[in-house]
Amino acid sequence: MDRYTDYSKRLDELRALLEKKDGTNLSKLLRRTNPVDIEEFISTLSAEDALLVFRLLKKDDAIEVFAELEQEDKEKIKTGLNDVEYSHLLDELDFDDMIDTLEEMPASVVQKILRNTDPEKRKKVNQYLKFPEDSAASLMTPEFVELKIGMTVKEALDTIKRIGHDKVTVYTCYVTDETKKLLGYVSLRNIVTNDMDTKISTLLYEDVITVNTSDDQEEVAHTFQKYGFTALPVIDKEKRLVGIITVDDIMWIIEQEATEDFQIMAATTPEEEEYSKMSAWDLAKNRIPWLMFLMISSAFTSTILRSYEAVIQSIIALNMFIPMLTDSGGNAGSQASTLVIRAMATKDVDLSDWAKVVWKECRVGLISGFFLALVGFLKCMFFDKVGLEISLIVAVTLLFVVVTAKIVGALLPMGAMKLGLDPAIMASPLITTIVDSLGLIVYFNIAQMFIAAAPL
Amino acid sequence: MDRYTDYSKRLDELRALLEKKDGTNLSKLLRRTNPVDIEEFISTLSAEDALLVFRLLKKDDAIEVFAELEQEDKEKIKTGLNDVEYSHLLDELDFDDMIDTLEEMPASVVQKILRNTDPEKRKKVNQYLKFPEDSAASLMTPEFVELKIGMTVKEALDTIKRIGHDKVTVYTCYVTDETKKLLGYVSLRNIVTNDMDTKISTLLYEDVITVNTSDDQEEVAHTFQKYGFTALPVIDKEKRLVGIITVDDIMWIIEQEATEDFQIMAATTPEEEEYSKMSAWDLAKNRIPWLMFLMISSAFTSTILRSYEAVIQSIIALNMFIPMLTDSGGNAGSQASTLVIRAMATKDVDLSDWAKVVWKECRVGLISGFFLALVGFLKCMFFDKVGLEISLIVAVTLLFVVVTAKIVGALLPMGAMKLGLDPAIMASPLITTIVDSLGLIVYFNIAQMFIAAAPL
Repeated sequence: MDRYTDYSKRLDELRALLEKKDGTNLSKLLRRTNPVDIEEFISTLSAEDALLVFRLLKKDDAIEVFAELEQEDKEKIKTGLNDVEYSHLLDELDFDDMIDTLEEMPASVVQKILRNTDPEKRKKVNQYLKFPEDSAASLMTPEFVELKIGMTVKEALDTIKRIGHDKVTVYTCYVTDETKKLLGYVSLRNIVTNDMDTKISTLLYEDVITVNTSDDQEEVAHTFQKYGFTALPVIDKEKRLVGIITVDDIMWIIEQEATEDFQIMAATTPEEEEYSKMSAWDLAKNRIPWLMFLMISSAFTSTILRSYEAVIQSIIALNMFIPMLTDSGGNAGSQASTLVIRAMATKDVDLSDWAKVVWKECRVGLISGFFLALVGFLKCMFFDKVGLEISLIVAVTLLFVVVTAKIVGALLPMGAMKLGLDPAIMASPLITTIVDSLGLIVYFNIAQMFIAAAPL
Repeated sequence: MDRYTDYSKRLDELRALLEKKDGTNLSKLLRRTNPVDIEEFISTLSAEDALLVFRLLKKDDAIEVFAELEQEDKEKIKTGLNDVEYSHLLDELDFDDMIDTLEEMPASVVQKILRNTDPEKRKKVNQYLKFPEDSAASLMTPEFVELKIGMTVKEALDTIKRIGHDKVTVYTCYVTDETKKLLGYVSLRNIVTNDMDTKISTLLYEDVITVNTSDDQEEVAHTFQKYGFTALPVIDKEKRLVGIITVDDIMWIIEQEATEDFQIMAATTPEEEEYSKMSAWDLAKNRIPWLMFLMISSAFTSTILRSYEAVIQSIIALNMFIPMLTDSGGNAGSQASTLVIRAMATKDVDLSDWAKVVWKECRVGLISGFFLALVGFLKCMFFDKVGLEISLIVAVTLLFVVVTAKIVGALLPMGAMKLGLDPAIMASPLITTIVDSLGLIVYFNIAQMFIAAAPL
């Protein structure tokens, strides 16, 4: 038995057999290895070895492995096959995997491959290739089981037995009318747990949850999560059933959407590729515009500091607490904004809750600001020994900065959403820049008030 | 047909019928509404109305709705039922839903309820209640279909028809030997697409991917994602099959693990509850220790600034660029650390890649640092008009700070992982604090060198 924790051992075994050129045992072990792990194995090989291993696979595995391969590894295999072999291979793939493969190829190559495909399929392929990238349509496949409303359980089982091999799932079967409008679905569980002469119409579940071809993939993922389905039907504007989406394609979307939010919140343009696949140059290109924008925004603090130069020069000790004050503001704001952004992304909170959220953050700010101010005051008094006045100035500023940061951190992401922007852009870097400026102005004004009241 | 985008309209319809006390139509409409949406509806109602709606549901829906309800809404229903009714309801739940419900109750209530349960089930419940919270075991259910190796397709279908109603899935059926050791699985797809007299043993898939009872739920989620399964068998130390985990419970884990990382990266103790359900006091309690720790760490900058007071006082213009420099360092470091933390969380990068990652970030730092230094220099020269020397000091420091921030931002999360800590703690707030101190030291040292070479 192959436990998942042992899969790196399995890869070592495969590698050893390949080095020994022991084709017989390699082929045997490949038959006992999950296609996903074979894909990982092939991706580490040279073009020559990759092709050798690929040729050893039994047909079903070869198709599954090919579907899993990265584009560059697919190329390795492709160069070893002639055009006819290659278009046969593509033909055998699940429809959605074929589309994914074709999408990454130059249009000229796609047309050449499609020449060997029958006209009806070619038409469908061309239609799929045109769907927008993040839409429900781009995730769907036309390979679902369609049943007729008049069938019995026996007839349905016969149909599934006949056509089920080519379908991505047989566990949810869809029933449509003559215009392809969706009437409902029947689960295979219901089919096999009922008698052979039961009418499918009596098992039909009519209130189907569906998604539209144009829906965003994030919405689709939320629908899957909310209802716990393993497949969802996709309908077009005329409410005709055009395809289905299965849950295995959705788990990646949930992760990918979180990754995108992490990237935006770290002030980077979201990346198409995985981190490990990107060059230093491409990474830099996604980061520089944001760094530049934030640097220029934070230059506003220079102007503020310059205008208070006189105060600083007269009480130079004020200066030493600036980074501590701005950092604390930034941290307090980033806690609030991150939690609010995430709560909106997971649909825990929506725009209508804005007043509740701001009021909650305001109270959180008062509580945490109070403790920070207290500790800050004690530190200034007894550790830095800067005297009562400066310690008080620092403590009052800390309280103010933390409360402001919490409110700004809660308001801005919700404001961004209100304006139709991605709330994730209102994450710590931008919040920090804004809170820094506010904090400095307050700090020096409080200082000036103290000085006016009782010159230090 | 009930499109998911219309679900809020459906809730309004239900509410209107409830207000009119139109039980007949309310009951009809409830039959056409997904249990998940009914759960949302009930959660907005008073205890009295909730019970009224719950009583209108047909039995299967009632069970599903109850499983979905939040603890406080379950309480609303519970108060309206007597002990026997309530333990019957619990009995009808899927095993994992029952465990989830019992887990949130006081032990005394659980024991009282279990008194009405048969001894064997009670033993199993008690065993499940003891599994650690984030383990594979806590996600599993014993309600899977078990087949015998000697069966034919017909016998398997008969078994599934007989026992399938009570199982969380019938789509993957598990075959064990007499000691309960897992021999392999058969998919229902393979069963229904083969002839009635085919032996199950010929359809058996032996190289099963399994998880262990003690595996962390995050590992389990990754196994689901990697292989695209809808169910995974769970085995104990003796390799006996003890339960299965289904994909619908996993989609939440993927989201929850990302949320936990967001919280840690924003310097908050991860929260058990959703944001909207937490009080200001609890939120503050999770944030204060981190804010305090970071404030005290950043106090190190005060010591640095104090020790360079003489330099600042002689060239007060240096002072105005401090926030811009520290902010840029913080931003550059947070880009690197967030991307590296996320790449590790999604298994794109692991510890063995550390040298590659650091070298990549070093190059990213040089490229982005160069452009930032250039723009920073021009801004100092022509906008702030602080003269060539200070402009040069700022530019050189910017380059240094960005490169250092990138390297520190890449190294620290990997270091944390090496030490067995959660890499997410090495996110922007801590990186900012460290880079701030380094940046200030470099800034003033470069300044001193310039002053020594050519007094301003």
